[in-house]
Amino acid sequence: MPDSPPAPLPSFRAIVPAGGAGTRLWPLSRAGAPKFLHDLTGTGRTLLQATVDRLAPLAGPDGVVVVTGEAHAAAVRAQLDLAPDALLLEPAPRDSMAAIGLATAVLAEREGDVVVGSFAADHVITGEGFADAVAQAVAAARTGYVTTVGIAATGPSTAFGYVRSGEPLGLPDAPDARRAAGFTEKPDAATAAAYLATGEYTWNAGMFVARAEVLLGHLARLHPALHDGLREVAAAWDTPRRAEVLSRVWPGLPRIAIDHAIAEPVAAEGGVAVVPARFAWDDVGDVASLAGLLPADADGVRALGDPDLVVALRAAGATVVPGGGRLVAVLGLPDVVVVDTPDAVLVTDRAHAQEVRAVVEAVRERRPDLL
Amino acid sequence: MPDSPPAPLPSFRAIVPAGGAGTRLWPLSRAGAPKFLHDLTGTGRTLLQATVDRLAPLAGPDGVVVVTGEAHAAAVRAQLDLAPDALLLEPAPRDSMAAIGLATAVLAEREGDVVVGSFAADHVITGEGFADAVAQAVAAARTGYVTTVGIAATGPSTAFGYVRSGEPLGLPDAPDARRAAGFTEKPDAATAAAYLATGEYTWNAGMFVARAEVLLGHLARLHPALHDGLREVAAAWDTPRRAEVLSRVWPGLPRIAIDHAIAEPVAAEGGVAVVPARFAWDDVGDVASLAGLLPADADGVRALGDPDLVVALRAAGATVVPGGGRLVAVLGLPDVVVVDTPDAVLVTDRAHAQEVRAVVEAVRERRPDLL
Repeated sequence: MPDSPPAPLPSFRAIVPAGGAGTRLWPLSRAGAPKFLHDLTGTGRTLLQATVDRLAPLAGPDGVVVVTGEAHAAAVRAQLDLAPDALLLEPAPRDSMAAIGLATAVLAEREGDVVVGSFAADHVITGEGFADAVAQAVAAARTGYVTTVGIAATGPSTAFGYVRSGEPLGLPDAPDARRAAGFTEKPDAATAAAYLATGEYTWNAGMFVARAEVLLGHLARLHPALHDGLREVAAAWDTPRRAEVLSRVWPGLPRIAIDHAIAEPVAAEGGVAVVPARFAWDDVGDVASLAGLLPADADGVRALGDPDLVVALRAAGATVVPGGGRLVAVLGLPDVVVVDTPDAVLVTDRAHAQEVRAVVEAVRERRPDLL
Repeated sequence: MPDSPPAPLPSFRAIVPAGGAGTRLWPLSRAGAPKFLHDLTGTGRTLLQATVDRLAPLAGPDGVVVVTGEAHAAAVRAQLDLAPDALLLEPAPRDSMAAIGLATAVLAEREGDVVVGSFAADHVITGEGFADAVAQAVAAARTGYVTTVGIAATGPSTAFGYVRSGEPLGLPDAPDARRAAGFTEKPDAATAAAYLATGEYTWNAGMFVARAEVLLGHLARLHPALHDGLREVAAAWDTPRRAEVLSRVWPGLPRIAIDHAIAEPVAAEGGVAVVPARFAWDDVGDVASLAGLLPADADGVRALGDPDLVVALRAAGATVVPGGGRLVAVLGLPDVVVVDTPDAVLVTDRAHAQEVRAVVEAVRERRPDLL
């Protein structure tokens, strides 16, 4: 942890939604083994493990709850030393509001009106400032705000949504907190540059912190059917009726992202705070992003895995993932990206990294077993 | 065979030297499995098999002799339906003069002064005219010339040596035969272009046809130690003394290519003929050359192997060898070359194909087991 060891924040609980289709980093990630299950930074910890490592000191040793699909239960259990109660399994994905709302409602049943914060399992965070930002977000949340952590943009990215900061809130325990003036969808490049020029915009990393009853209250008001379904499931969760209620209620829950369900409408009402943060963040949305997370060797070559399996000549900027146990030799292709796995190899370059979905679609038609 | 089925040429015997280090097409070819053992054109026949297919109708069903190293004996036997006498195994490579000279001397012992022709096992020949060119070369050889088949150049290649044609020889059974005015080493590009502008130069593909006693006579005069050693080995070949004589004589034989040993000095004396040929020829010297031998699909993508294992998007000119049984996906890299094998994958492009030896050297230092 880059920060000095923080003390756990009182009555704070961290929710880690661990989902995703696993296709943007194909063939490294797969539907059966999405991004969060992989060590993408060469640190020896998977993204999921690193997320829990980061949150456990803030939420306390039993304060982290992971929400994932039943298909990933075994893999998650193998990677984490979780108490049985700390793993919530969804029968089927119902988008982020259902996942986070389920965990919030279960925690509210168990512990009352704790402060919950949601942090995706497949993001990479480095540098300093995470613990301080979360502490301020928790403090702002205690006063009734839905609070997000705004990421300092490193450039006019078109891959992320943005949060616009409004006036300072003057909260003693959250000195950096401002009112969130609004959320935006992913902008085009010119719009993104204009955002950054104002100094008012940060990236929306989907980190939301709120009192459980504040979050559920907004949900009851804005999406009552979803709220009622989640409350019913939560009431049955720690009882013998869980399976029965889940199988009856879950399939009918609306699919909606927490950004659309709560963050945007509540921000429009003035109920969202933003704590700008200074740590570095990446959602590892494609293989070019992956390259940016790996250190380059003296020849400008990046490897994720055993460097003895990589031979790269005249290939500055190359990124190689030797994940198939075989030697990968690259000659004369700057910025090439090679992802080798036991049953598929992808060869592209950084400029085309965002188009990998087209490859995935072609593979889906021909060899769905490889997705 | 593109030509109409030819009749065997009387007393003609074909010699197929099958050797090579196996590194220029690494990782497809290996030291243990050089180029000639592979199907590089997607026809279902290896280069060695195709070479014998081409020669058997001209030399007769028992008229083809293969010379190879002991290390490749099992692979060659598995690929060819050879009579035991038709496979000559060298204890160690001693360059092309020793290989061709050994086969010539053994054939002379067995059959007297037959006409022999040497044809490398790892070249690709397509189009028409091979049988006619060999027939004319054999006819010219019967009159006492060492005769080579000159390949019509398709461009000013710097990868091949050239043969310069002199005056027509006026031979009734070899109407295209001319005196060979000389052989050249691989030229630079400007020199190669100047050669082609004269209309007098063809590529030297190392095809040499001569009466056995003519070839051995030149060898006795120009390289008497090599000649005497080969004659001694040949006299013992079909006797119980073969192993004893081979182990005593072979290690001391001079290493020299037939071009330097005979073709160049005899051409300077006026004793070499050249028959210009119109068939297409390629020595598959690198992966770019390999690409040129494969048909392109509608997207300009070439595959050697199962096309169902190749996904190529925005990669016109790409060449993919899916030799590891895994899916190979290529995105956005025109002219990329991907050679996938079970234990190594090479990623380069056509422009860098001739530099693969640098990769091989790097692999030799680190993982010689992969060469």
